[in-house]
This record gives sequence, structure tokens and C-alpha cells, in this order.
Amino acid sequence: MGREFQYDIMEEIKKRWSPRAFSEEKVNKDDLYAIFEAARFAPSCFNEQPWKYIIAEDEKDLSVMRKFMFDGNRIWADKAQVLALVISNNTFWNGKKNRWNQFDAGTSWGYLSLEAQRRGLITHAMGGFDRKKVRKELNISDKYDIIAMIAIGKMGNKENLPKDIKEREKPGLRAPLNKSLINLNYFKDK
Amino acid sequence: MGREFQYDIMEEIKKRWSPRAFSEEKVNKDDLYAIFEAARFAPSCFNEQPWKYIIAEDEKDLSVMRKFMFDGNRIWADKAQVLALVISNNTFWNGKKNRWNQFDAGTSWGYLSLEAQRRGLITHAMGGFDRKKVRKELNISDKYDIIAMIAIGKMGNKENLPKDIKEREKPGLRAPLNKSLINLNYFKDK
Repeated sequence: MGREFQYDIMEEIKKRWSPRAFSEEKVNKDDLYAIFEAARFAPSCFNEQPWKYIIAEDEKDLSVMRKFMFDGNRIWADKAQVLALVISNNTFWNGKKNRWNQFDAGTSWGYLSLEAQRRGLITHAMGGFDRKKVRKELNISDKYDIIAMIAIGKMGNKENLPKDIKEREKPGLRAPLNKSLINLNYFKDK
Repeated sequence: MGREFQYDIMEEIKKRWSPRAFSEEKVNKDDLYAIFEAARFAPSCFNEQPWKYIIAEDEKDLSVMRKFMFDGNRIWADKAQVLALVISNNTFWNGKKNRWNQFDAGTSWGYLSLEAQRRGLITHAMGGFDRKKVRKELNISDKYDIIAMIAIGKMGNKENLPKDIKEREKPGLRAPLNKSLINLNYFKDK
């Protein structure tokens, strides 16, 4: 059983998922920068644009970035030809705490993921990496939240994945729409 | 001067912005539920799908929802024919804290905003509402973060907006790409 859609939504959303079978094929630079261009045009609170993407796109930088990942992710994500860290500024221009910064960074990553899909690239966001090590080694101040690492590349052959990962290599399902779209009485009735 | 694009990205991203001139025209129900269908297929950490959208789509519910908004938003957002609150579960299925919940909810809102654009709907996310009042009156437990309220509807006539708002009624600009796309040495060199 695959994904079922109750409404006819955009192709990029229907077809996008988070594969682990990355190919070692290089990513076209125009495609690569275009996905960050897409991320740039996300909406954000007060148009603060709190997100930043720290990109590794050559062997030297990739080898640094890979060492931040936990082993369970390295098994498959080491092959990705691009890795990017999403961080976001938790403080507004006026020095006040920006409580929407991670939400806004998520919107930006959403735009990135769909532009990637449109251009035939695959993306996979991961939480499994050493945030403390990233903060120290890349000299990132506490003004930034370190959120996720994103593997970016071209689809590879799933036969090359270890058996346990290969078995999970398919689009993830979702809870029915009525679990996420609720009315004003939903919690009052609980 | 309008928005400038350095790369040719998807139309929905290029054309989407956050208007305040909502029309009083009703929203087609198929279009409305399709945008939440889009939100449903966002990726999330461990596929937890932490987001929930509390929707007000009839006069009775809208009148409750409007009272949560701060006055500065009510001036324009009272006309929106649909209002939705984005909340997200800050706890994983296993009881552990989900530090990615707001990021993932943001991704889901990003998908929603683009499907809306594709269907000729406008959306505008707001932080200006009384979260404590929402939590109390809708009986939302601390397990959920209350993030944003989203106005959804059809584009109206900007001439109907108050003068100060009318002057800001255009697509927001963005910082250049090199402010958000950075390399591993960016902070080390600071």
C-alpha cells in the first residue's frame, strides 16, 4: 500500500519523499543554487528571514560535515554530494527573542525540498548529528539554533543500501487528514 | 523595485506573498481541504507529523477565532473567510521532547501556502494573537506549542485597506542569496 491522496495536490508534493539511496553523481550547480533561492523566498515573521544554510559541496567541506553525523546516518548519507546545515537566528533585529525562528526555517526548508523535487534532486533532512560539535567547530554563536542537516543529491540504486535500510526505502505514509485538520471543539471534547 | 530572482524557481514560490487585502468571497471547499492535504504530506522527524490545524470556516467559529487576534491584525484579517491555528505536538510518541516540532510544522505550513497559491487562494501567517487565551479557551494542553494563526481566502481590493496598510500591500523583498547560503568558514572568519 502506497500513499493515498484525498485531494489532487501539486505533483512536487505528491512525489517528494526522503530517500536514502543517494547516487554519487554530481549535482548541477544551477539546480543546487536554485533550491536555496527557493528557500530564500519563504515567508517569515516580520520578514526576518532567520534561516541560514551552511553548505558543503566539495570533498574538503563534505569530509568535515560528514564527521558531524551520527553513524546511523553516515551509512547512507555519506554518499550525498551536497550536505547543508540549517541554522536559524533566534533573535529579532531589535534584540528580542524570535519564537517563530524554527517554524520559519521549516517553511524555508519546505520550499527548498519542493524546488529540489521539481529539478530531479532528492533531499533528506536529518536530526542525527552532533550539534555541540557543530557549534564549536564552526564557531556558531548561541544566537543561532542549529536545527537539521540536509542531504542533497541524485537518486541512486536502492540495491546498494544495507538490507535493513533497503526495506524502509519507500515514500512514508501519513495519518488521515482528520488527525491534522481539526475543529475548535477538538480538545474541549477530550 | 519588486522581487528579483537569481534563479528560475517554481511559479508558486515566485508569485506567493502575504497579502492583507482579503475579499469576502467564500472559499471553495475542495480548494480549502486540498491545502491541508498538502500540509499533511510534509516531511517530519521520524515521520511524527507533529502539526495540527484548528480550522474556523463558518461564522460561528470565525467569531471565536477573531477574538484571539490582536487589534492590528483584526483590521485586515477579520475579512478572511477562513482562519486556522497551527499548533504542534512537542513530544514524540515515546514521550521524549521533539525539538524539531516547530521546524516540521513550518515545513507543513510551507506546503500549505504553495498549494493555496496554486489554487488561487491567498494566505497570511500571523504571530499577533493571544496564545494564552487560545490555550485556555480551546483547552490545549502544554504538549502542544501554539505557533501561528493563518488567514486564508481570496484576494480582495487593496483600496479597501486603511492607508498605512495599503502602502505596505506588496510582495516582500528578500536579502541577497549570499546572506542565507554560506560556507563552513562563515562564522570562523568573524
